Amino acid sequence: MSQKIPVGILGATGAVGQNYIYLLQNHPWFEVSYIAASPRSAGKSYREVVASKWLLGANIPEGVADLIIEDANDASKALGRCRFVFSALELDSKDEIKALENAYAALGIPVVSNASAHRWSEDVPMLIPEINADHISVIDAQRKTHGWDKGFVAVKPNCSLQSYMTPIWALMQAGYEVKRMFVTTMQAVSGAGYPGVPSLDMIDNVVPYIGGEEEKSEKEPLKILGKVENGKIVNFGGLKVSAHCNRVPVINGHTACISLEFGDKKPSLAEVEKIWREFRALPQELDLPFAPRQPIIVRSEANRPQPRRDRDEDKGMAVSVGRLRECPLFDIRFVGLSHNTVRGAAGGGILNAELLKAKGYLA
Amino acid sequence: MSQKIPVGILGATGAVGQNYIYLLQNHPWFEVSYIAASPRSAGKSYREVVASKWLLGANIPEGVADLIIEDANDASKALGRCRFVFSALELDSKDEIKALENAYAALGIPVVSNASAHRWSEDVPMLIPEINADHISVIDAQRKTHGWDKGFVAVKPNCSLQSYMTPIWALMQAGYEVKRMFVTTMQAVSGAGYPGVPSLDMIDNVVPYIGGEEEKSEKEPLKILGKVENGKIVNFGGLKVSAHCNRVPVINGHTACISLEFGDKKPSLAEVEKIWREFRALPQELDLPFAPRQPIIVRSEANRPQPRRDRDEDKGMAVSVGRLRECPLFDIRFVGLSHNTVRGAAGGGILNAELLKAKGYLA
Amino acid sequence: MSQKIPVGILGATGAVGQNYIYLLQNHPWFEVSYIAASPRSAGKSYREVVASKWLLGANIPEGVADLIIEDANDASKALGRCRFVFSALELDSKDEIKALENAYAALGIPVVSNASAHRWSEDVPMLIPEINADHISVIDAQRKTHGWDKGFVAVKPNCSLQSYMTPIWALMQAGYEVKRMFVTTMQAVSGAGYPGVPSLDMIDNVVPYIGGEEEKSEKEPLKILGKVENGKIVNFGGLKVSAHCNRVPVINGHTACISLEFGDKKPSLAEVEKIWREFRALPQELDLPFAPRQPIIVRSEANRPQPRRDRDEDKGMAVSVGRLRECPLFDIRFVGLSHNTVRGAAGGGILNAELLKAKGYLA
Amino acid sequence: MSQKIPVGILGATGAVGQNYIYLLQNHPWFEVSYIAASPRSAGKSYREVVASKWLLGANIPEGVADLIIEDANDASKALGRCRFVFSALELDSKDEIKALENAYAALGIPVVSNASAHRWSEDVPMLIPEINADHISVIDAQRKTHGWDKGFVAVKPNCSLQSYMTPIWALMQAGYEVKRMFVTTMQAVSGAGYPGVPSLDMIDNVVPYIGGEEEKSEKEPLKILGKVENGKIVNFGGLKVSAHCNRVPVINGHTACISLEFGDKKPSLAEVEKIWREFRALPQELDLPFAPRQPIIVRSEANRPQPRRDRDEDKGMAVSVGRLRECPLFDIRFVGLSHNTVRGAAGGGILNAELLKAKGYLA
Repeated sequence: MSQKIPVGILGATGAVGQNYIYLLQNHPWFEVSYIAASPRSAGKSYREVVASKWLLGANIPEGVADLIIEDANDASKALGRCRFVFSALELDSKDEIKALENAYAALGIPVVSNASAHRWSEDVPMLIPEINADHISVIDAQRKTHGWDKGFVAVKPNCSLQSYMTPIWALMQAGYEVKRMFVTTMQAVSGAGYPGVPSLDMIDNVVPYIGGEEEKSEKEPLKILGKVENGKIVNFGGLKVSAHCNRVPVINGHTACISLEFGDKKPSLAEVEKIWREFRALPQELDLPFAPRQPIIVRSEANRPQPRRDRDEDKGMAVSVGRLRECPLFDIRFVGLSHNTVRGAAGGGILNAELLKAKGYLA
Repeated sequence: MSQKIPVGILGATGAVGQNYIYLLQNHPWFEVSYIAASPRSAGKSYREVVASKWLLGANIPEGVADLIIEDANDASKALGRCRFVFSALELDSKDEIKALENAYAALGIPVVSNASAHRWSEDVPMLIPEINADHISVIDAQRKTHGWDKGFVAVKPNCSLQSYMTPIWALMQAGYEVKRMFVTTMQAVSGAGYPGVPSLDMIDNVVPYIGGEEEKSEKEPLKILGKVENGKIVNFGGLKVSAHCNRVPVINGHTACISLEFGDKKPSLAEVEKIWREFRALPQELDLPFAPRQPIIVRSEANRPQPRRDRDEDKGMAVSVGRLRECPLFDIRFVGLSHNTVRGAAGGGILNAELLKAKGYLA
Repeated sequence: MSQKIPVGILGATGAVGQNYIYLLQNHPWFEVSYIAASPRSAGKSYREVVASKWLLGANIPEGVADLIIEDANDASKALGRCRFVFSALELDSKDEIKALENAYAALGIPVVSNASAHRWSEDVPMLIPEINADHISVIDAQRKTHGWDKGFVAVKPNCSLQSYMTPIWALMQAGYEVKRMFVTTMQAVSGAGYPGVPSLDMIDNVVPYIGGEEEKSEKEPLKILGKVENGKIVNFGGLKVSAHCNRVPVINGHTACISLEFGDKKPSLAEVEKIWREFRALPQELDLPFAPRQPIIVRSEANRPQPRRDRDEDKGMAVSVGRLRECPLFDIRFVGLSHNTVRGAAGGGILNAELLKAKGYLA
Repeated sequence: MSQKIPVGILGATGAVGQNYIYLLQNHPWFEVSYIAASPRSAGKSYREVVASKWLLGANIPEGVADLIIEDANDASKALGRCRFVFSALELDSKDEIKALENAYAALGIPVVSNASAHRWSEDVPMLIPEINADHISVIDAQRKTHGWDKGFVAVKPNCSLQSYMTPIWALMQAGYEVKRMFVTTMQAVSGAGYPGVPSLDMIDNVVPYIGGEEEKSEKEPLKILGKVENGKIVNFGGLKVSAHCNRVPVINGHTACISLEFGDKKPSLAEVEKIWREFRALPQELDLPFAPRQPIIVRSEANRPQPRRDRDEDKGMAVSVGRLRECPLFDIRFVGLSHNTVRGAAGGGILNAELLKAKGYLA
């Protein structure tokens, strides 16, 4: 019998849900035992509902294909079927998602969420494990507030941030304040889910707008970089961001062009590169299964990173950077790239769960 | 008999040369009477050389298809065959292009060039007719220096600038200094000519690098905005630019994300929009055939401009702007778009020639 | 005041409806005066509903943008507002479309339809004006059967047929029986409407299936080539077709690879080419505004026709053929191409209406 | 020390050569020890020459990146450096390739070739190991003819055949003659190498022509299905093929639409499916490292196989088929798909080498 931890997927039929199922195949710690989706899919097998829209290679993983989908709205169905759930809920209402995630937590089922509903709850950590693993500690306050025993909610930030937040954090941690950042993203269509972006909008075209994306890109870094005080996360006040977000005809991989202004202390380009190459953090120390061995990969070719060439680096969990050079207006500029559905979504959620497990929160 | 001015095309078989031939069909003033290319094409008909690589719709324009290609290296062949030439030369060596363009000018054949060779010759105007038509006056000094009678060289700037230089100039002209500009471009593959970018680099991909493009984007605006003093163009010193240039899977149309910082006097968003909508310049006053009636088109939809929807506006000669909003770091930001092979290349060259004609330089 | 015939568009907000509005700009005979769509759009201006999803260039045509959308389900609203309607209805139920189109006809409003609902009504002509203009005569029987005075319904066949039916008909008309045909299509995404095909299914991919398309491709030619007997169209029995239909990452233009087997009398390749080049039919004789001057354009280049290069030939109404060569199994093979949303949809519908007008059916 | 067989790659810097190097990473039997290319690359490290055009993921495999490239024209350089070579030579002249491959063989270095030069040498086997492993026996005659001791040349057929030859062979082997076949291919751009197809020809386009491809598709099956007689391969005379070959905007994966006519004995659709599902051959019996466990994968979804979803099945070595249905003209029709650079090129070459090794020809 499997000794792995049984896990559930909420919103299992959508694009992010499919990614969780795809990435959790052969996971050394976790095993998908429970899948839930909207009431209209409930009662059907996963294969039956998803076969014609499966996005990830040829086949739905055996072992999940024949599971019967439950109604995600009824949290009690999950009791005894899984130790925690990954939430990939895609409801229109953030309030409904929040209420539903809370319902699972209240029943003692921790929720590791990809949804944006709880990102601004001040006692919910928004984790990039290489950056703010210490934010986990607010879970204790969260449990106390709600009177939850074992349950809790933890979230991850928006996908496109991942292409540059770890590189920036590495510099900050090395003692260089980053005061201002311009970022222009070129984001893959998989970020919009399925069916997502119509091909009539994307072949031979760029769409210079993604609803809500610029706001998230400018605001979420402040919480990610925040400090825990009295069981709450207090946003960082030292960074200002301007983001332009674009959709481009790429399947996977968000690319970002970034210019940074440092505080008084400014690293040389050589120092920046050295800091990035040598950066390691808690996920690497703990040797978590989904942790990239080298979180930041520095490319020296003139024309890299590129989504199709670099997105899959180190299981799709590494961030690739390149074109590091001086900026005529700020201090440095570079290009960052990460795999939006792996590092930026399901893979990032799995790494969060691994960290929480390692820290004893999924016992 | 046609009363039109006979014109020649140097580099007629390449992508830009094809665009000149395509756009000059039915031109009210000019008629292609002479085509020249590399020695290996010389002596063959245009159809014979270009049929299998014609890029612009189904057919090579009748009237050009059967012209015999001459050797572009021999300027004397053009004597008596055309009143001036459009240069779309694509030689590896800028010095060779410069020497060759000078050879035509020396023979009394004006050269309206798309090549970059002469962009930094201080007595060669680098024209965007809506911005710096007055730079034409350096041609007199140029002729004097070289001892040329009727010949001269005039050039146009790099294609991607066109997506934002006219909007910026409109603001400057209205009294608002633009001090600093961040620009990130997403450029079409037609900008790289033919064969140009391999499809293996472009399907499902972005290439975050275009050789030399960022340097041009940061430097050329300073000459465009410069002042004529003593027969030379003195660069503008009041603007600093940081450019990130990317290649994306789009056939035509360069898109740019721009943030601007003004001097002390700052326009409101409403003022910016009003200035752009009302902007008209000399090409509009002169009612030049290729002048867009409205040089700057302001889109109010949230997701525009887009290359496939907006590039062809007003014969491909208008610049479309949209997403005008405040910038958290600088003052305003917006998206600009123009057709890179029309406004940004052959169409821009034709407008330059029209202006020169109107000003008496092509008599 | 305009002397043009006022026309209505049913299903005006969808992709085909948009195409009608786009193509009818400046039409010499017709003018859009009435637009109708689903009840949820009714009462709003066309601009308000369509602005964010307008597919055809930068702007909704002035003159239509401010029209108020009516409820297409209420045919009586169209009375006095237009002399006939183009139907681009996209309801799920063919029976509902049929009933609705009949309702307009019953009120005396002729329906020129792009929908497939009535394609198999034996007294409804399915027109390609170059092939079966004589089928119009069944309208008399149709009117009699239904007791309609001025109203009637006429339809056009499926879009992908257009890439090869006229070439085949030209050969048949020249006396060469076509007995068997293999056809493999590579169809543009615009054929699926908007939002249509998700970009996640189309970037770096081919989908070798289009629901219902192969059945239509195998069956509709038999009616198109049929004979009118006793007020009904009797299908042609002499042709058998096998169709493989595929979706490819192309915006507009359906390409088809075709092999033909003739009866005992077989034309040479030279004869085939001559027949195609010289083919003209009633629309050309009548000089209808949307009739291509040359219905079949023969390309001699080895690698043509191609969608992006050839789809727009002669207003998008010509069929381009190429790669004519012998077939090792049948007699000849070739590649055919037509613009699916122009010749294959709205443009074809407009040509049908022009023919009906010329024949006195839209008086 | 490695006990693996040292192998060389001729034409190591091209697209196929890169694929060999990529796929041979961690091969259990073979290890790349020698790389050769054109004289202008000779003397440089592989990394130096290939870094800016490496096509397969982020990095050139360590262990090859620092190898120094030798001049492929000098076969003697390979002596003592590798036991056999994979030829991915891309010279313009087939005669030169033939002479060069012979030169290696003459020196005792077997050549497992991807080039087409020797495909029609009647004593050179053109192998698809699941179909004609017995053709290997002509190597004995080949050696005798040339007076070679250990050297020989073996080749593989054209890439696009692979999408349907194994399925057809499976039916033939089960006792059903296939007499006639229509095939229309939609081929990936990687089949044209690098730089290969310009993106200006491929974005929003289809090119209905690939030079020489239809001829290969119609002729090569006859040798593949041939019989060995007196040390020569005698072509099969019982099959006639008509092929239409197209290039589509897909990175990897050739898709084919196929109609088959059987002899008098015709299988039901259920029998066809059963034969395909159960088909196994020598590579599977020998459990060769690159052999797909199930050579033919039958998809039951309506819209499969698709290149992006199915090309990577079983290491990219399986053929996926789907849409099996009756043909109105012939007997059955279906869609076949295989990975053109893996199964169709380098992976197929490696499987050939494995078979030759297992049969004692690479001792």
